[in-house]
Amino acid sequence: LEGLVVTNVDDELGSPWSQEPQRHALLKPASKRPFNAEPPIGLLAEQFYTPNELFYVRNHLPVPVINPEDYELEIEGGAKDKTLTLDGIKALPKHSVTAAIMCGGNRRSEMTKVKAVKGLSWGAGAVGNAKWSGARLCDILREQGVQPDETKHVIFEGADLDPTSHPYGASIPLAKALDPRGDVILAYEMNDEPLSRDHGFPIRVIVPGTVGARNVKWLTRIVVADKESDSHWQQNDYKGFSPSTDWDTVDFSKSDAIQAMPVTSAICTPQPGARVKVDDDEGHITVRGYAWSGGGRKIVRVDLTNDEGVSWHVAELEQEEMPDGRHYGWSLWTARLPVSEAQRRAGDVEIWAKAVDSAYNVQPEKFEHIWNLRGVLANAYHKVKVKII
Amino acid sequence: LEGLVVTNVDDELGSPWSQEPQRHALLKPASKRPFNAEPPIGLLAEQFYTPNELFYVRNHLPVPVINPEDYELEIEGGAKDKTLTLDGIKALPKHSVTAAIMCGGNRRSEMTKVKAVKGLSWGAGAVGNAKWSGARLCDILREQGVQPDETKHVIFEGADLDPTSHPYGASIPLAKALDPRGDVILAYEMNDEPLSRDHGFPIRVIVPGTVGARNVKWLTRIVVADKESDSHWQQNDYKGFSPSTDWDTVDFSKSDAIQAMPVTSAICTPQPGARVKVDDDEGHITVRGYAWSGGGRKIVRVDLTNDEGVSWHVAELEQEEMPDGRHYGWSLWTARLPVSEAQRRAGDVEIWAKAVDSAYNVQPEKFEHIWNLRGVLANAYHKVKVKII
Ligand SMILES: [Mo]
Ligand SMILES: [Mo]
Repeated sequence: LEGLVVTNVDDELGSPWSQEPQRHALLKPASKRPFNAEPPIGLLAEQFYTPNELFYVRNHLPVPVINPEDYELEIEGGAKDKTLTLDGIKALPKHSVTAAIMCGGNRRSEMTKVKAVKGLSWGAGAVGNAKWSGARLCDILREQGVQPDETKHVIFEGADLDPTSHPYGASIPLAKALDPRGDVILAYEMNDEPLSRDHGFPIRVIVPGTVGARNVKWLTRIVVADKESDSHWQQNDYKGFSPSTDWDTVDFSKSDAIQAMPVTSAICTPQPGARVKVDDDEGHITVRGYAWSGGGRKIVRVDLTNDEGVSWHVAELEQEEMPDGRHYGWSLWTARLPVSEAQRRAGDVEIWAKAVDSAYNVQPEKFEHIWNLRGVLANAYHKVKVKII
Repeated sequence: LEGLVVTNVDDELGSPWSQEPQRHALLKPASKRPFNAEPPIGLLAEQFYTPNELFYVRNHLPVPVINPEDYELEIEGGAKDKTLTLDGIKALPKHSVTAAIMCGGNRRSEMTKVKAVKGLSWGAGAVGNAKWSGARLCDILREQGVQPDETKHVIFEGADLDPTSHPYGASIPLAKALDPRGDVILAYEMNDEPLSRDHGFPIRVIVPGTVGARNVKWLTRIVVADKESDSHWQQNDYKGFSPSTDWDTVDFSKSDAIQAMPVTSAICTPQPGARVKVDDDEGHITVRGYAWSGGGRKIVRVDLTNDEGVSWHVAELEQEEMPDGRHYGWSLWTARLPVSEAQRRAGDVEIWAKAVDSAYNVQPEKFEHIWNLRGVLANAYHKVKVKII
């Protein structure tokens, strides 16, 4: 697959879009400006660490051009402010964490079938799993003299600017940033390679277990503050609402910004409409996918059914050995499902997947009762219809 | 209600059951020996702090008789072992935490309707909310020189003994015990009163956010260990399984011991079958209940419907101001639901409640797909049918 890159759409010189990076041809754009794209999910469960060039891209604004020599990260809060260069960050003790990052809108295209929602039409591929390496934010903040304070937040700003020159921004609770088990990293490497421009070169803050939107790319500023970020994306986006809340009644100030994500899973193979051969020996089909939960919660079980829940089959899990509460990577899973004679004759089977996390939280069965106007948090059972041959 | 206590069932002198405490007449026993009982749930949502004498009682064994003068707590682990007296524990800095404690089998009586499960038939009242005060376990362990270690556990033993003289036991991860935000307390007070015998006098370890079974009463021994407790209750009970796992196929060693509990809620008033008057002004009925999630996750929303989810109504929440991740108390909620003319004529309405926690985890809709042979983790939507008058 390597080398299969597409060149940019042509852009006039001076347009903020004229210096977008090249991208892999297999990434399917949900939008081109800003660039948002996911890989084919059939490839997603093939490797525990998602290849960098196939990792979904979720950009809110044009990709900034940053010269690593000139890069500076401002840190405000604690005893006194501080500026770190890229070399300065690399000189700090290096930590690695395996973390899946998932877009708040992953699987939105399924939720929107119930009733239209506003947002990019993501499939189940707006997630990837990587090993991230860099300096620990808790080390930097403690060195600055920042003390624990349950009421405070840490604001992140990127070098990506909106048309009025405001940067992308988001925030997380200070408690998460200061917790060594929170594993928040100022990452300069993704799967042992320097970050690519699309993934935040030279520094992206990785907030494991937390919705993608708080993992700010092209990080230029960190502020310890009394309030959350006042950015659009923190205040008026990436929040959940009741199914009966519509655009006439919605009050974004009344809902909590998404931080940790709920438990979810998806079937990566077979894909919808696939013609699946039953193995001759035992009459099974093989199903494979991913599962993940936010907040460091480990996946403890994935259940599959192909008879609407009359019988459930427990999948084998492939996951990192990490303790609960700090289990930030995803789990890949494989299940073998028996196909009955009647199902063979009928020719159609619908497969359902549901995951269970270490707090024994489960996915809801369907989208109707978790529907929300922004189409976020789309974690109902993943259901895939296939043809049996 | 005070003073309404029942005396014990008579027991022969020398029987382990002969010195059980007196209990409130309103506690409805699910079993008498050991004593297990819940209050009428109609009373549960009346007060944010559950009155001690109405707090559900979940005993696994006879209640031990402990003379506070003789009480000793052994602590093993760290630099050297230590023994604390009750006065010694009271001499340590005193901390308070509001925490709901919920039995792993709360609402089992609903799950068992799908298919029989083994266990006490709890309604939705095997939960209570209290202010617990005592010494912080993290202070004691750190003072002992116990260092963070992701692989270790803290084992708790009670003074309650089984017929072979083995104590009740359970364990939690060391990371939870050492975390100041974990708020694990060696409690000697419940709602500002000394613990009663049924609630663990003189010391109960309160593990906020964690299933009741790990909140060991009559605590006599704490051991920092390489493995979880080998007790029956840690190893062969209080674990979740797939709906297709039965007593022939179950392997308790393959499942994770329940620690943090999943998000749940219950309707406390009106109760099933109640005749509910629609208010004349606006045609509403008022519904009240509780909601809670484990792991310190705050309840961010409770949704109610009386038309099977066609329309959802967001409840008002009554909850403590605590940050997410450390929000261990329950939330009480009140909702006003409109009743349509058609519903009035039909006379019957089914009310559903579902809660959402700060990780945006939701309850599953029904019990069929979370059914498990021990009937634990019964957190499906709470559904109550009432008569409209
Ligand atoms: Mo996102
Ligand atoms: Mo329990």
